Amino acid sequence: STMAESTNMRLRLPLLCIILEVILIILFGALVEYNDDTHAKLWNANKSHSATRDDYENEFYYRYPSFQDVHVMIFVGFGFLMTFLQRYGFSSVGFNFLIAAFSLQWATLMQGFFHGMHHGKIHVGVTSMINADFCTGSVLISFGAVLGKTSPVQLLVMAIFEVTLFAVNEFILLSMLGANDAGGSMTIHTFGAYFGLMVTRVLYRPNLDKSKHRNSSVYHSDLFAMIGTIYLWMFWPSFNSAITNYGDPQHRTALNTYYSLAACTLATFAFSALVNPEGKLDMVHIQNAALAGGVAVGTAGEMMLTPFGSMIVGFLAGTISVLGYKYLTPVLESKLKIQDTCGIHNLHGMPGVLGAVVGAVTSALASPGFTLYYFYDVFADAETGKWNPQSRGGFQAISLAVTLGMALFGGLVTGFILKLPIYGAPPDTHCFEDGLYWEVPGEEEGHELNEVATPNEMEKLNS
Amino acid sequence: STMAESTNMRLRLPLLCIILEVILIILFGALVEYNDDTHAKLWNANKSHSATRDDYENEFYYRYPSFQDVHVMIFVGFGFLMTFLQRYGFSSVGFNFLIAAFSLQWATLMQGFFHGMHHGKIHVGVTSMINADFCTGSVLISFGAVLGKTSPVQLLVMAIFEVTLFAVNEFILLSMLGANDAGGSMTIHTFGAYFGLMVTRVLYRPNLDKSKHRNSSVYHSDLFAMIGTIYLWMFWPSFNSAITNYGDPQHRTALNTYYSLAACTLATFAFSALVNPEGKLDMVHIQNAALAGGVAVGTAGEMMLTPFGSMIVGFLAGTISVLGYKYLTPVLESKLKIQDTCGIHNLHGMPGVLGAVVGAVTSALASPGFTLYYFYDVFADAETGKWNPQSRGGFQAISLAVTLGMALFGGLVTGFILKLPIYGAPPDTHCFEDGLYWEVPGEEEGHELNEVATPNEMEKLNS
Amino acid sequence: STMAESTNMRLRLPLLCIILEVILIILFGALVEYNDDTHAKLWNANKSHSATRDDYENEFYYRYPSFQDVHVMIFVGFGFLMTFLQRYGFSSVGFNFLIAAFSLQWATLMQGFFHGMHHGKIHVGVTSMINADFCTGSVLISFGAVLGKTSPVQLLVMAIFEVTLFAVNEFILLSMLGANDAGGSMTIHTFGAYFGLMVTRVLYRPNLDKSKHRNSSVYHSDLFAMIGTIYLWMFWPSFNSAITNYGDPQHRTALNTYYSLAACTLATFAFSALVNPEGKLDMVHIQNAALAGGVAVGTAGEMMLTPFGSMIVGFLAGTISVLGYKYLTPVLESKLKIQDTCGIHNLHGMPGVLGAVVGAVTSALASPGFTLYYFYDVFADAETGKWNPQSRGGFQAISLAVTLGMALFGGLVTGFILKLPIYGAPPDTHCFEDGLYWEVPGEEEGHELNEVATPNEMEKLNS
Repeated sequence: STMAESTNMRLRLPLLCIILEVILIILFGALVEYNDDTHAKLWNANKSHSATRDDYENEFYYRYPSFQDVHVMIFVGFGFLMTFLQRYGFSSVGFNFLIAAFSLQWATLMQGFFHGMHHGKIHVGVTSMINADFCTGSVLISFGAVLGKTSPVQLLVMAIFEVTLFAVNEFILLSMLGANDAGGSMTIHTFGAYFGLMVTRVLYRPNLDKSKHRNSSVYHSDLFAMIGTIYLWMFWPSFNSAITNYGDPQHRTALNTYYSLAACTLATFAFSALVNPEGKLDMVHIQNAALAGGVAVGTAGEMMLTPFGSMIVGFLAGTISVLGYKYLTPVLESKLKIQDTCGIHNLHGMPGVLGAVVGAVTSALASPGFTLYYFYDVFADAETGKWNPQSRGGFQAISLAVTLGMALFGGLVTGFILKLPIYGAPPDTHCFEDGLYWEVPGEEEGHELNEVATPNEMEKLNS
Repeated sequence: STMAESTNMRLRLPLLCIILEVILIILFGALVEYNDDTHAKLWNANKSHSATRDDYENEFYYRYPSFQDVHVMIFVGFGFLMTFLQRYGFSSVGFNFLIAAFSLQWATLMQGFFHGMHHGKIHVGVTSMINADFCTGSVLISFGAVLGKTSPVQLLVMAIFEVTLFAVNEFILLSMLGANDAGGSMTIHTFGAYFGLMVTRVLYRPNLDKSKHRNSSVYHSDLFAMIGTIYLWMFWPSFNSAITNYGDPQHRTALNTYYSLAACTLATFAFSALVNPEGKLDMVHIQNAALAGGVAVGTAGEMMLTPFGSMIVGFLAGTISVLGYKYLTPVLESKLKIQDTCGIHNLHGMPGVLGAVVGAVTSALASPGFTLYYFYDVFADAETGKWNPQSRGGFQAISLAVTLGMALFGGLVTGFILKLPIYGAPPDTHCFEDGLYWEVPGEEEGHELNEVATPNEMEKLNS
Repeated sequence: STMAESTNMRLRLPLLCIILEVILIILFGALVEYNDDTHAKLWNANKSHSATRDDYENEFYYRYPSFQDVHVMIFVGFGFLMTFLQRYGFSSVGFNFLIAAFSLQWATLMQGFFHGMHHGKIHVGVTSMINADFCTGSVLISFGAVLGKTSPVQLLVMAIFEVTLFAVNEFILLSMLGANDAGGSMTIHTFGAYFGLMVTRVLYRPNLDKSKHRNSSVYHSDLFAMIGTIYLWMFWPSFNSAITNYGDPQHRTALNTYYSLAACTLATFAFSALVNPEGKLDMVHIQNAALAGGVAVGTAGEMMLTPFGSMIVGFLAGTISVLGYKYLTPVLESKLKIQDTCGIHNLHGMPGVLGAVVGAVTSALASPGFTLYYFYDVFADAETGKWNPQSRGGFQAISLAVTLGMALFGGLVTGFILKLPIYGAPPDTHCFEDGLYWEVPGEEEGHELNEVATPNEMEKLNS
């Protein structure tokens, strides 16, 4: 068979990894510098006389715990959530690991470039680490759509393009439109979902049912996936609040997300049982839809949404997510030819759009007398006096439209690039299968103790 | 078969979940408000002129890392600890998830109601989040006693009553008796354990041995359970110190708990090997008894117990816990008809009582000259000058008695309510079985790589 | 068979555990006191008048989140990383748990003794907790070399000696040579690795291939191991920065480690595919070599290494680690008779030495004009004006030599002590086997639902 058809990664993967990393290292050498809080000279220069207190004021102490929670979501949360497939656990955790490690470096450069250089240099610190992890999250959402149907080389190429477009879209929303999206309902979830859905649409495989028998879970793979789910669920309050302004906005965002997720979980269990003829719960729903509440308060969580409002949003998000898995996903596949392995449309797509709409409405409904306090710490122009709730809501809505456009267009182009027959993609007959790209161990020779040692032997050993 | 006998959840579970969540949302809308640290207006109004510093003083930065550790214990710790059963992993993690998500919302209301309303409103922030998680922990302890023998509807009903009584008991102990119990030896562990033991006593199943073959672990289920154990063990210092006063008490509590757990672990391994005829370690002991050291310093950990004292308490707790699993649990089942699936009496019951006694004794033994510093930050009345060690110790002891009474009475009533044949409880023949309430996937069709692709095919693909 | 040959732990393990814990408790009672930040009297005595602010300044709030991340690495990271063996999961997590719980107590005493007593007392608080966990990490690295070939009694005896020598070596490096090694490239990784390699050399088993069929992974055991890997990877920035000075050094260390690990991961995937004839990735490499980047910036991470420098170091570390697994480990076993179960030479040995060298070179290359700011917070003598980059680099290099000497000598002596036939070590035929020391459950009787309930029965139940 020709090179193009082969799935052998021996040259392709090392070559791509090494070239990418060498480019990254060169660009980091040329462009990246410590920021004021990580640079020994600058930090000391900016210190006031009471040195000890100042060290405690380093942003490290106020952002780093949030960063670590986000980091766990990216590597354990996303990685294990996708281990639900019976024979794709190595790839789920492993490729997640690879493309995340690449994306966070590339994102540091792209976001640094767009978010403002300092005398031609990109400044890094814990905030840039969080932002890079956020951008990485978007790539991992798209990974969920093409899970099991792509080679690691394809995934890295997808990450190159998606990270770049993510940074552009984020720049348009946050810097040009002045939108607010601290938890990324739009920038992360909507963008990642529709980008990934368009990619998987372009990569449509008419004969994917040849791998159907592997496109499902087994008992223990579902438990591994629950590790991912629970970590995502627990740390989502940290995710949404990680880069808000300090003080009450950060505190409030965590609180709102906590309640949204709790309400979402009850909705998920309710509708999962309701849509099943025997009233049985479906692990796919519990693993995914219970998280939709975090997605849906990614924009408005920072605002004065109240626990009451958060719970309503969370309940709605869980409901539409379960219904999406049950009724919409099969239609998307059969009618629109969108093969969405993890159902990211239900977990990130629809709840992301819901979150954007909730954010726009919450902004637009702000009452003038209350506005000064309300959005003081949330929207920059609230402070300057130019604040107008309706126009703010309008800009939020425009941001959603821009995000959808960027994602669909970017996914389209990227999809066609990924369609080139040079990446060693798996054949239709061998999707959802670790064995193509991994050394897979054999099975245990025998579980029973007496295959290892006869009871007599064992008795002797223990006497 | 009649509705009452059926285990079909299709109507019951959705109905209950939706009704409960709607009630919660309405009550939150009517009663719950942001507190000073989460409300944009109040936070800004209370700010001094140096705005930036104040934002750093938000309680979020001093409580939230502890909250996240507690959150991990509730959802990963408890959830995975109970996955040890061979075919009950979905239910262990899943029902844990469901009843925790409900309980934390309901607890916010109940605790807010009893711990003092502000002009008719319940104020929420990170401290209320920690307290709600604590109350949830108590429900999950009781879940351990009835694990495998209850439907999710029963569990939600149990949570409604247990959360309510927890809040009442906590109010009596902390507000009326002025007791100290930051890590909840009494309020959480003793209460949750004896409540659950009474419930399982009332729900006694004489024919449970029909499900005996499923009431045990397999190799990988024991490893999943160790995930729960280790997370509980690691984060217990955060649990016990999460709501202490700031400064030295919080620091000291974490330190004492750390040493208690370390000593407990050595006792657990020692006695686990000692009580086994072949000297083999038992996973049940390691998974559970090694945690008893955290339970047993839940009251005194905040006091000047010293690492020395903490290690003695931890060692004792591990010892009685292993001996309880080995010798007491079978007697409780055969003589007292208490079927305690997880052995919560050994992990939470006896160590909780031990912790309460240690707390009372430590309080009573406080030497007057040292008292001012000793309990300055721990007991409110130490500051007012009304402090009397003996009476303080007495109130601590009374608190234990009240807790036991409330738990046993509450468990009795709740048990009879749960006995009604309307909840779809599993029959004796189908306990400890996920298949009743979950869509359980089939097994892998073949592990061997050559069932997926013959070596020839694979070679071709990789050429 | 005689006592000496038996693997029965019934007397040996309990006796050793209880004696050790009793000794620990007595020594803690005699020697250990709360430090200023954990002691109620001292903390209050040192308070300025503005009591509330001071409570926020307790070191607890600035060190404890780092401590918890380190704690997770020690118990989950190391514990699960070693579960890759098919039938040694209980021992990997369990013995890791046991020897870590012992070592952290013993390390508190040993490090307290060497790092300076206060009026004859050892003062404890969160910094001593982190240091004790660090020392424990070193023991767990050595555990990796002898994994599967030792009894728990042997492991505890090894820990007694290794912790003691660790404290001596650490004292020589940090206090006598003034070396800098915040993340422990030398004190933790190099020391633990070469100590363990020497122990396993002395304990060489010529007939270990009798247990060869158990010295490999199965599908799910590799996934459990990935839990360990990912947690180590994510929290390594916290590990390296946990005990640096406050402010910019801590922040910078976390940042440098983050980039080093990301670059290391790409190198690992690249070389893992490259060294495999079919271009397939090897789980052994991904699980281990991807972490080498954290080890290799353990010394220089605190310095002004820059992200650029960190990425180069990480890339090199990943490369040599994969190549070590592929080409060096087999040679070490066949030529030098070093049976290194986990390949700690590749993950901790070589990357540790690389880290030490990078640290020495970075120190030596410091340009004088920049030095004042550069090393102000890193090296104590930078402040006193006695600073000389070349001599500093020299002392760093001497520290590496001392560490290697201490480790090899200590491992040699300890190895011979562990060779005594009194510890119940496993026979060559039963290495890598939980069944010797653990009650291992049987297998599930049948996965299929219809073995539990026939479809008819199930239908009736759900009707």
